[in-house]
Amino acid sequence: MTEDTETGAAETDGGVVEHRRLIVAGTGIAGLTAAIYAARSNNDPLVFEGDEPGGQLTLTTEVDNYPGFPEGISGPELITDMKSQAKRFGAETKNGVIASVDDATRPFRVELTNGDVYTADAVIAASGASARTLGIPGEDELMGYGLSTCATCDGAFFRGEDIVVIGGGDAAMEEANFLTKFADTVYLIHRREEFRAEDYWIDRVQEKVDAGEIEIMRNTEALELHGTPEDGVDHVTLARHPDGHPKEKLDDPEFADEVEVFDFDAGAVFYAIGHTPNTEYLQGTGVEMDDEGYLQTAGGFDGGQTATAVPGIFGAGDVVDYHYQQAITAGGMGCKAAIDADDYLESEVGAESQASEPAAAESDD
Amino acid sequence: MTEDTETGAAETDGGVVEHRRLIVAGTGIAGLTAAIYAARSNNDPLVFEGDEPGGQLTLTTEVDNYPGFPEGISGPELITDMKSQAKRFGAETKNGVIASVDDATRPFRVELTNGDVYTADAVIAASGASARTLGIPGEDELMGYGLSTCATCDGAFFRGEDIVVIGGGDAAMEEANFLTKFADTVYLIHRREEFRAEDYWIDRVQEKVDAGEIEIMRNTEALELHGTPEDGVDHVTLARHPDGHPKEKLDDPEFADEVEVFDFDAGAVFYAIGHTPNTEYLQGTGVEMDDEGYLQTAGGFDGGQTATAVPGIFGAGDVVDYHYQQAITAGGMGCKAAIDADDYLESEVGAESQASEPAAAESDD
Repeated sequence: MTEDTETGAAETDGGVVEHRRLIVAGTGIAGLTAAIYAARSNNDPLVFEGDEPGGQLTLTTEVDNYPGFPEGISGPELITDMKSQAKRFGAETKNGVIASVDDATRPFRVELTNGDVYTADAVIAASGASARTLGIPGEDELMGYGLSTCATCDGAFFRGEDIVVIGGGDAAMEEANFLTKFADTVYLIHRREEFRAEDYWIDRVQEKVDAGEIEIMRNTEALELHGTPEDGVDHVTLARHPDGHPKEKLDDPEFADEVEVFDFDAGAVFYAIGHTPNTEYLQGTGVEMDDEGYLQTAGGFDGGQTATAVPGIFGAGDVVDYHYQQAITAGGMGCKAAIDADDYLESEVGAESQASEPAAAESDD
Repeated sequence: MTEDTETGAAETDGGVVEHRRLIVAGTGIAGLTAAIYAARSNNDPLVFEGDEPGGQLTLTTEVDNYPGFPEGISGPELITDMKSQAKRFGAETKNGVIASVDDATRPFRVELTNGDVYTADAVIAASGASARTLGIPGEDELMGYGLSTCATCDGAFFRGEDIVVIGGGDAAMEEANFLTKFADTVYLIHRREEFRAEDYWIDRVQEKVDAGEIEIMRNTEALELHGTPEDGVDHVTLARHPDGHPKEKLDDPEFADEVEVFDFDAGAVFYAIGHTPNTEYLQGTGVEMDDEGYLQTAGGFDGGQTATAVPGIFGAGDVVDYHYQQAITAGGMGCKAAIDADDYLESEVGAESQASEPAAAESDD
């Protein structure tokens, strides 16, 4: 198998565009960090941008907690800088969304949604996670017409409106805070009593509460969104129960009567209720996932922490991490995946497709 | 126990300088990232600089692989920027080296080498690792007098000399490459045939080999350093065996005869043979370590990955990671430790010592 590496592409049926030593899925922090490290290791990475080039960070105006930027940096600028850095060392980025990976053959066959097929000796899945929705009536019709998952992108369309933000984590706080620029009042709706957010964000929101710009509605959930694509969101049906999780209680004969259901006028609704990992393209493979689709990697403390159940496929960033989900933690994992992939490529695939290896190999004294 | 948090300092004997919610040991990437996140979570971190303020990165001239700096950044500059960033959010850094942590009481008693005692509800150990030595004759007398563990610090003292660099990883390659600025010739001595370094560095070294500036001596080890503190290093006794690890073979009657032992003239010797974690101050605690002193943390994929065996003490960076040891991976772990510590402080210690919590608690609607 090792000897086939260089000629793998030529041997498959005619549809193969190119063979690469390493393909990286995703150009968020994890993917670009993997690309920087992989390029420096001469693994000639090809990085596909995916559905959301730059990943979640491009939806953030100001990144204050990525270490190294004392005054903060805008998300898109940080991503652009990392991309330049990866390219400086030889990484190549391309528009393209991976539709499937075939792990029945070596090299892997990587097919894009446009039908292009690449082969690769190793794959790093750093395809991130996408904004989650509630699955309630009105959602599909109104998405993009008053309903949004990105305050940074869409906030400015709703100047002077009452805006509902749904969620209880950092993202919800940040979005609520940001949307006060535009909104008459921001209503922050959370299904539980306690927020999961950083105190930093809770404090910022509290300042806006004190200033009358944000109102917090705890133990409250949305049941339905009302409006039309033409006129946008008109109002939202909400449910509230003092012990939280009102929707669950509405379905429970014992508690249903205690749930307060009411209509609430709003000109826009922003979801900030978490993300779903973008791992569908790995579903036909031997890569193991949990119920939500997060990739299961080896972990531990030795090398190979980012290895999946399929040798040669590695996972990094929000496709793996359902807990911390920070830029710096995604970067750390991207780095580990590139180092793990390099170990794999050196030991399992060999150095044939590595341009500069012969020089190093001849350097014996 | 929870109620004692605020008054813990006053209740102990008179020697306590101050009680803090969180003490961080170390101002390398891991410690400063923990400080940024902890400060943003209102955990009011006090960060002790330790023996080597800024950590290993301050010994690096140019950091090219920390994501976000397309043209690279100097190690000291990156550290300075991260420190400003931590301070911007309220972290405090202090000169001081932690001598011991007493985990028999809550809050923890943290004693410095100067005798000052602090108490803390939680401790993040991010005290890094220090350069390793070989333990060969001549080493103690010549350290700082021709023998060094930091090319960036000491290289310029040896202009025009033949310089020996010992090691086979990234650090050895980087130091060898850097020292060509000053040296007549750099001799890179490695006990095995294969290098562990990134290809990027192997290639850079190979270019210098091609240019006649570096000579590589594989399967070679140093047995003794010769010289005087007055005149520095004069020569080094080396051993070589074609199958590597000559020192081991020298002790083995079966192979001893095959080992070539010879003297080699050199004006300076630089060690780049790895690091030992700085974890002595935790030796009296319940924190578990491996044989080399690396902290054992919970790991896994949920929260609490950086938890040690002692609730309230967390580990991050090179005190835990013996494999990847990159700036970005240390940063990722520092972030995780701050988030884990915050979860611990919120749930186990309570919010009493947290200045802004009351405002957030009153914000219910």
